[in-house]
Amino acid sequence: MTHKEIESHCDVLIVGAGPAGLMAARMLAEFVRQQPELKVRIIDKRSTKIYNGQADGLQCRTIESLQNLGLAGKILAEANDMCTIALYNPDENGVIHRTGRIPDTLPGISRYRQVVLHQGRIERHFLDSIDEVSGGRIQVERPLIPETLEIDESKVEDPDAYPVTVRLRYMSEEESTPVQFGHKTENGLFRSNLQTVEEEDAAYRLPPGAEAGMYETVHCKYVIGCDGGHSWVRRTLGFQMVGEQTDYIWGVLDAVPASNFPDIRSRCAIHSTDSGSIMIIPREKGLVRFYVQLQERAEQGQRVNRTKFTPEVVIANAQKIFAPYSFDVSQLDWFTAYHIGQRVTDRFSKDERVFIAGDACHTHSPKAGQGMNTSMMDTYNLGWKLGLVLTGRAKRNLLKTYESERQPFAQALIDFDHRFSRLFSGKPAKDLADEMGVSMDVFKDAFVKGNKFASGTAINYDESVIVAKEGKASTVRSKKELAKYIEVGTRFPSEQVVRHSEGLPLPLGDLLVTNGAFRILCFAGNAADPTQMARLDRFAAYLDSPESVISRYTPASRKRDFAIDVITIHSNSREEIEMHDFPAPALYPKYNYDKIYADCESWHCGHGKAYEKYGIDSERGCLIVVRPDGYTALLAEIEDTKSLDEYFDTFLLQPTHALGPNTEPDWTIYAQRKKARREEALAQREL
Amino acid sequence: MTHKEIESHCDVLIVGAGPAGLMAARMLAEFVRQQPELKVRIIDKRSTKIYNGQADGLQCRTIESLQNLGLAGKILAEANDMCTIALYNPDENGVIHRTGRIPDTLPGISRYRQVVLHQGRIERHFLDSIDEVSGGRIQVERPLIPETLEIDESKVEDPDAYPVTVRLRYMSEEESTPVQFGHKTENGLFRSNLQTVEEEDAAYRLPPGAEAGMYETVHCKYVIGCDGGHSWVRRTLGFQMVGEQTDYIWGVLDAVPASNFPDIRSRCAIHSTDSGSIMIIPREKGLVRFYVQLQERAEQGQRVNRTKFTPEVVIANAQKIFAPYSFDVSQLDWFTAYHIGQRVTDRFSKDERVFIAGDACHTHSPKAGQGMNTSMMDTYNLGWKLGLVLTGRAKRNLLKTYESERQPFAQALIDFDHRFSRLFSGKPAKDLADEMGVSMDVFKDAFVKGNKFASGTAINYDESVIVAKEGKASTVRSKKELAKYIEVGTRFPSEQVVRHSEGLPLPLGDLLVTNGAFRILCFAGNAADPTQMARLDRFAAYLDSPESVISRYTPASRKRDFAIDVITIHSNSREEIEMHDFPAPALYPKYNYDKIYADCESWHCGHGKAYEKYGIDSERGCLIVVRPDGYTALLAEIEDTKSLDEYFDTFLLQPTHALGPNTEPDWTIYAQRKKARREEALAQREL
Repeated sequence: MTHKEIESHCDVLIVGAGPAGLMAARMLAEFVRQQPELKVRIIDKRSTKIYNGQADGLQCRTIESLQNLGLAGKILAEANDMCTIALYNPDENGVIHRTGRIPDTLPGISRYRQVVLHQGRIERHFLDSIDEVSGGRIQVERPLIPETLEIDESKVEDPDAYPVTVRLRYMSEEESTPVQFGHKTENGLFRSNLQTVEEEDAAYRLPPGAEAGMYETVHCKYVIGCDGGHSWVRRTLGFQMVGEQTDYIWGVLDAVPASNFPDIRSRCAIHSTDSGSIMIIPREKGLVRFYVQLQERAEQGQRVNRTKFTPEVVIANAQKIFAPYSFDVSQLDWFTAYHIGQRVTDRFSKDERVFIAGDACHTHSPKAGQGMNTSMMDTYNLGWKLGLVLTGRAKRNLLKTYESERQPFAQALIDFDHRFSRLFSGKPAKDLADEMGVSMDVFKDAFVKGNKFASGTAINYDESVIVAKEGKASTVRSKKELAKYIEVGTRFPSEQVVRHSEGLPLPLGDLLVTNGAFRILCFAGNAADPTQMARLDRFAAYLDSPESVISRYTPASRKRDFAIDVITIHSNSREEIEMHDFPAPALYPKYNYDKIYADCESWHCGHGKAYEKYGIDSERGCLIVVRPDGYTALLAEIEDTKSLDEYFDTFLLQPTHALGPNTEPDWTIYAQRKKARREEALAQREL
Repeated sequence: MTHKEIESHCDVLIVGAGPAGLMAARMLAEFVRQQPELKVRIIDKRSTKIYNGQADGLQCRTIESLQNLGLAGKILAEANDMCTIALYNPDENGVIHRTGRIPDTLPGISRYRQVVLHQGRIERHFLDSIDEVSGGRIQVERPLIPETLEIDESKVEDPDAYPVTVRLRYMSEEESTPVQFGHKTENGLFRSNLQTVEEEDAAYRLPPGAEAGMYETVHCKYVIGCDGGHSWVRRTLGFQMVGEQTDYIWGVLDAVPASNFPDIRSRCAIHSTDSGSIMIIPREKGLVRFYVQLQERAEQGQRVNRTKFTPEVVIANAQKIFAPYSFDVSQLDWFTAYHIGQRVTDRFSKDERVFIAGDACHTHSPKAGQGMNTSMMDTYNLGWKLGLVLTGRAKRNLLKTYESERQPFAQALIDFDHRFSRLFSGKPAKDLADEMGVSMDVFKDAFVKGNKFASGTAINYDESVIVAKEGKASTVRSKKELAKYIEVGTRFPSEQVVRHSEGLPLPLGDLLVTNGAFRILCFAGNAADPTQMARLDRFAAYLDSPESVISRYTPASRKRDFAIDVITIHSNSREEIEMHDFPAPALYPKYNYDKIYADCESWHCGHGKAYEKYGIDSERGCLIVVRPDGYTALLAEIEDTKSLDEYFDTFLLQPTHALGPNTEPDWTIYAQRKKARREEALAQREL
């Protein structure tokens, strides 16, 4: 039997259209929008997206990123806001009681709170956004499965080469629908880690002798493997997952419960004396997710008999743990079971040509709501770097920072989950002398601390070509004292500022739109002071000059804020200074009313006190460089344009045709007044 | 030539699919959802909805209402938030300067701020919502035009009759596209009041001898005329518009400006010495609306030559007023011109069978952003009343309150606009002795005070069968002292409360969903106090009894919260009392976690202090009845179930089959404990 064979080229092939793959596609869609000749493809072996169950938690940092991608509004409108965690523990008679409540999201760490929404809806919003941003150029192609992957190592450093060859097979609809056990309720056992690699592969294979579809040989510049815990890409590269399994097995139900348990609409952690633990995650549309520890244990090295895990078994065990409260289920939406283990790979990339991301790199228990978040944040990190390299705007050294930033975080996540899931699955200590049991004080403390980690806001990337930390051995160093409460390497935190042009209070974080641009936040300080304005004038003269990073790194025909976007935040009131007093066109571009902000009182939302919260001197200000993914990269004095040059020169590439100096005249009504002032300032500089 | 004639019946025929008509359709869609056999139709003579220009301001009270209809989120996501009003006046040399800034929305009057979004987008969201809520049963039918309307007066009080007969003509696409002057820019002159009634009618008429479509004779229970300032329904009823015209003519532009005027993104009121005034309304997508006073004056009783009003004329006059700032237009989206006048009709209804709403009842200048808002709020008021009467749940006396509530408001609006627009169009006073000129202090003061009026939050409906004010001659009286800062007759103001089941902070106003239900807000006070809980127990026993308004007025087969929804707000923390301590099922219905709220500290948004802001005693609480449209109707003591009975008996109708008493047992885990307490409380009552 012969099959049709075709051959093609593409810039990036994304394998897998789950959260990691869709985020990769969404990040690259922005570059496709800018440069429609880029060819980005995303394939999946499933014939449709998922409709029930799976991951559902969205952490603060993920929501911040979704906001900068224009996706947070729609997702939050459908999601359920979890507010409270209630802890239940058994008393001396084995009856469970609420022993405390803590906030689900630590107050103050983000402008968002953790929410839940089922993965299928989140994927739906991603698909819509990818379609819109790419102008329909990126569509998930399914069902397609890769069968071979080869890298021509001699070409990996050649920017024009297509060194990765992938052979794809087009599957029939039928074979791409995984073979299940035949339960009526939609179940996720076929994607659970209770299934082996061989079983998962078999579920998507054609039965022997069946008709198969055509093949396509794709020559790729880059490949991203987002193909899940059993990742074919990872196995093909030969990367090992390292870690260990526990013997704990948990069942999961998505259901509308019928129960008189008082905290059924709170997130809860319930430890029983002898029947195991439950975690409750209240969801959208009256649904509640129950993670229920099962009595069944996995024997090390032995296969688990999956047929034992039915919804009835999970419900029966939940009833034991909930007693004396009633528990039943009026509508069962989805169920699965899994075996707790923590594993991570130490390699995230082969030759910076093939990358793996998401569950392909790290698997762990779902209860801290980290899986989907970490997966999306992996490709949120990779996407802009790959986009800049692909479009010839950055050097390939930028790509090394994907592994150096995400692998240590994955390791930290695995370590966190290791501790956390054992506290969750362990029996409560009977008394202080019970060393084998879990102390409920220790558990509560772990939960509070864990929430900061789990929020994603605590990530602090190491020094690298794109993170200029203070005091380390590097040519470019941040001056920590310029913004005392901002940590270089962490995401730039949002505070309220007021748009000068209209008086609108808004989160500064909303300005950090994820479009591949770096941002220079020019904290202008007290701009009403002539000395300070002279400093701003000199900075503006640099920006407009042919030597500035903007003039050199912006491709010709692009707008001046395309590669590096300058946003000014002054510490004056809107009465003390006029927008037109700021240097134009550098800081106040023609007819652009969205570049100047004030840290001042607003009519309706008070004073944001951004300078105070960032620890920035409200007289002298400073410059803060923020990466396209919102992480703080560099703190510098307003005149320290040398550090700007050095920072960007390390990893950006000059386009063949650069935009060059800004030759627009000052367009504001105060142009004459400013011209005199600027000439005076420049004269002082000469002295 | 003969035409096809058909005949039909419908419950409500809405004439006109502008803001008033669409709101009427959306309000009735809820009743169609509940009772799909209801037949509601909406027709329009235009072949498509509008795409540019027209009204665009959404006031606070309108947005609150949209929120309760589930529409605010989508509309606010697209709208522009106007924050600031800047006032510009000429100095002694005739050069304009900013003389002050005020907030566009008075801080504290609403949880929303005034926004702008073009009417076409707002109509789009309404069309989607009408379709969704009515299950596709209500669709705008166009182009259709009514030609005759007759009322059979002998049948107007018969609930089963169809006393209104309307003959409709189906138009061709071509004739429903209004005849314009042929300007390339989309213009609204054909809908401006510079056009006469005859000209408007002619614009939609078939030319002589042309082919016309079929006719339909519709027998209607009710007709709502939402057919604009030149309303055919109003003219057919013979209602007069009373008022006067000024001689001021204004032009309107929607454009992306090219200007160095510093406040181009603020709402501005600019008075020039001799060239007239401008109002600036910054809009979505970089657009700005300019209201520009023209030099041309209208002669009383004379026709205005509309061909004089071109975008070029408007821009040229704007340039004079803006000088010395530059002003040009880089993209012109829409323009029109209008002649300022204020007119209102004293009748809003004929026999409570044919109603008119929106511009059909009141026309005025657009600058206070009242037109679309008042129009929508007219039918927001009428819609639920008509729905309740149509579905046999209320007596026809309810319908009289439409005219008695909306006509006085329309008159107040006309009076407000009369003063306000003369201040706007008048020349600024040269000095204190200039009595003919407008004092800029008076103008600023009028603006600040006008903003409260314009927000729509100040509406205070008179006493009626549905508004039980304190101390007036009425069988049912509110006890003002129970909620000192709440005014019966005004919309119930929203404050933050915390959902007991999960700890979520949310605006109490969000619970007042517009679904035709009245609400009894049970401010439970200090429910942790046994004496207070005994009061709640007695109130709950009433609600569950066969005599309660819920048992009597809820149709059989409906849920108990269908007609009158009871929501409990206590003043305890979530630690002082459990949800399960509240009387179930009356206040805490089975598996319903959305009925009990706390006025307490939240994790992330502080303490709402709702009791304090409402002026309610946090120990004793009270009952507050809120109408389906969110207006406060009655304040009563918790045991004053007699007032509840009397209030609802006045205008509600008992269904043939009522739901009857609540026979569900107490389902909570504390049922035993509560049973003992309740028996004790009931025993005390007997004494």
